[in-house]
Amino acid sequence: MKVSIIAIGDELLIGQVTDTNSGMLARMMAPYGWEVHQVMTVADNADDIRKAVDQAFRTTDVILTTGGLGPTADDITKPTLCSIFGGGLHFDPAVLDNVKTVMAKRGRVLNKLTENQAIVPDNAIIIQNKVGTAPLFWFQKDGKVLVSMPGVPFETEEMFRSEVLPRLLHHFDNNISTTHTTLIVAGISESALAEHLKDYEDSLPGYLHLAYLPKPGIIRLRLDGRHTDASVLTSESDRFVKQLKHLVAKWLISDNDMSTAAILLEELKKRKMTVSTAESCTGGNIAHQITLIPGSSEAMNGSVVAYANSVKSGILKVDPAMITEHGAVSIPVAEAMAAGVRTALKTDISISTSGIAGPGGGTPEKPVGTVCIAVAGPGDSMMSETFHLPGSRQRVIERATSEALLMALKALGIPGEI
Amino acid sequence: MKVSIIAIGDELLIGQVTDTNSGMLARMMAPYGWEVHQVMTVADNADDIRKAVDQAFRTTDVILTTGGLGPTADDITKPTLCSIFGGGLHFDPAVLDNVKTVMAKRGRVLNKLTENQAIVPDNAIIIQNKVGTAPLFWFQKDGKVLVSMPGVPFETEEMFRSEVLPRLLHHFDNNISTTHTTLIVAGISESALAEHLKDYEDSLPGYLHLAYLPKPGIIRLRLDGRHTDASVLTSESDRFVKQLKHLVAKWLISDNDMSTAAILLEELKKRKMTVSTAESCTGGNIAHQITLIPGSSEAMNGSVVAYANSVKSGILKVDPAMITEHGAVSIPVAEAMAAGVRTALKTDISISTSGIAGPGGGTPEKPVGTVCIAVAGPGDSMMSETFHLPGSRQRVIERATSEALLMALKALGIPGEI
Repeated sequence: MKVSIIAIGDELLIGQVTDTNSGMLARMMAPYGWEVHQVMTVADNADDIRKAVDQAFRTTDVILTTGGLGPTADDITKPTLCSIFGGGLHFDPAVLDNVKTVMAKRGRVLNKLTENQAIVPDNAIIIQNKVGTAPLFWFQKDGKVLVSMPGVPFETEEMFRSEVLPRLLHHFDNNISTTHTTLIVAGISESALAEHLKDYEDSLPGYLHLAYLPKPGIIRLRLDGRHTDASVLTSESDRFVKQLKHLVAKWLISDNDMSTAAILLEELKKRKMTVSTAESCTGGNIAHQITLIPGSSEAMNGSVVAYANSVKSGILKVDPAMITEHGAVSIPVAEAMAAGVRTALKTDISISTSGIAGPGGGTPEKPVGTVCIAVAGPGDSMMSETFHLPGSRQRVIERATSEALLMALKALGIPGEI
Repeated sequence: MKVSIIAIGDELLIGQVTDTNSGMLARMMAPYGWEVHQVMTVADNADDIRKAVDQAFRTTDVILTTGGLGPTADDITKPTLCSIFGGGLHFDPAVLDNVKTVMAKRGRVLNKLTENQAIVPDNAIIIQNKVGTAPLFWFQKDGKVLVSMPGVPFETEEMFRSEVLPRLLHHFDNNISTTHTTLIVAGISESALAEHLKDYEDSLPGYLHLAYLPKPGIIRLRLDGRHTDASVLTSESDRFVKQLKHLVAKWLISDNDMSTAAILLEELKKRKMTVSTAESCTGGNIAHQITLIPGSSEAMNGSVVAYANSVKSGILKVDPAMITEHGAVSIPVAEAMAAGVRTALKTDISISTSGIAGPGGGTPEKPVGTVCIAVAGPGDSMMSETFHLPGSRQRVIERATSEALLMALKALGIPGEI
């Protein structure tokens, strides 16, 4: 199925907000073989929205719109969609009840403007918004479907995942079965992996497709299947997944689609081990990535963000003379930080980072992007490495976080030997 | 001048890469009164590119395309533009020389594929790429201009700033001035604010427009102006900004467009104060948000992520009896954590969080989303509050982070009294 996305909002066109919804929707539809044909970003302007919808319906059967549904005067998506699909607007008490419930959960009181969210198009199926105040609208015309969704990313994601995508699949793909398997590999480049898997890819039947989804430090390999016969699909998909696992075994860190932090947590729980972090340049991001995962408190004791050298020597007991001799960004200091936090927080393993995230602070010997990472434990083991990571401050922090988590997995023996 | 942007590339449509170029181009053109009318994202497909160009020329005089200029076979932008503007392709030795120079600077050797970059359209003005291998093309037809640019963000930015934008301004001799002012407010909902500002909005002249841009915990209010008379615009815009500041004074936390963490850092630096955090449910995210900002080490000493109660009592010196009596998620414990980290890390102020981010761990008295936040300092002051935050684990963490940063600002007296 081909899909058009229309992202509505002046804030997108002036570059104050970046549209991340379109990519997110594309990634959520991809496993079902649904492709985004085009994305159009338009202003909060009736004429522009109308033209974009016309143009989208000429080429695709499904249109997803995001944004333009707020209660303020500049959001004119609702009346514009009425002018396209016919009918007017009416007050829907069920929507008002839902808005009140959502507002109450937030501890807020309803005001006059928010009440406007309960004014809905006559000719749309209403999908109640479980996580926000703007309801979603499902329009149909000549066998084509337009779904109008809110633009706040977490609302778009939650509502598309739980309500819109299942309804779309039911509406258009009622009799097609799908399978999706994701393997996560680390320690090989995308192009080297593609070369390694060339013969395997050529051997895949038409209803199975292998996708490479690289992320900093890892590659997600997703095998998607689509077939009208569910039993053929299941057995063949199982067979090819098995083959694929064998082919990538020496880089395989998980056969589930999860973040590196989640993989680490799962392995720690399996071994009944605990972890702590001592972070300088990553500034708490490793701890943040680990604690984003539900149940992380089982294995995560905590972290010391040691930005100032006084914290490195005070709480982590790094010898100040060592910092003077080698510099804060050095392997000896990173190892001492890892050892220090492991002792202070009494954990089985610990991860440390010390680096120069930039844009300032670089020197000829230690340019911006230089990051020392160490992992202490389990047992007496100590691992450490200096990385040179490219890009902006944020990018260096993200890459350092990813490398640190991969090093911790390595310390646990993952990926294992074949 | 109205501009259309066409972002070309399969990687954008499948959600592997987020298009940040369009927003960047919009922000660079805004000061000159050039507006992005629409952004279209299309695949590396001749037919789709042609349709997008047709559609863009129907509504705007300037088209900027990004991407689709790589040397690999899937980039078909060049021949497609030839089919639109007439003429064929020819080899340009000056481009080859430039490509060789750029490659040499990167320490790379020219290969056969990269040589293809010197094959250029007959009917375009060539703009040499100073920072990459793909040349830029300036096409003209019926008084309209299309500029084809590379898609790698730093190449797009550098070449647009130094070459394309000056040429466009010269070509179209534009005489419209613009102003953009952003105010950041906290502690009021979007709809309540819109109601509060209704009369003000109604009083705005046609050339001034107020936009509401909500983010978790804050609202960005942007007043945009466009006028042919720069002096009228400046004086009237100043007058209305002043009025707006007065109207929102009790919620105003910044009159610059920056993140809450950046506002806090700036205020701390002004006061020559330092900050630390003691984080339970936010798991290091407050420290991460602060340390994302360049130069944060000037005011940020560090953080203790105290996930396990043993860390709360061990490093932060929270009395274990207090944890037993009130529970880890309680105002007394949050205050003790803030006081403890302030002492341990020797900072002027400190921020603490203890809460239940979910999805597990909730009880009838303390449901998921219950978060206690405290700020110790400056001086003897201590602030604390219990929040009930909606949404997923990630959302609770993000909102708690935002509320904690806002409470720290409050402790510094921001927003101030009118």
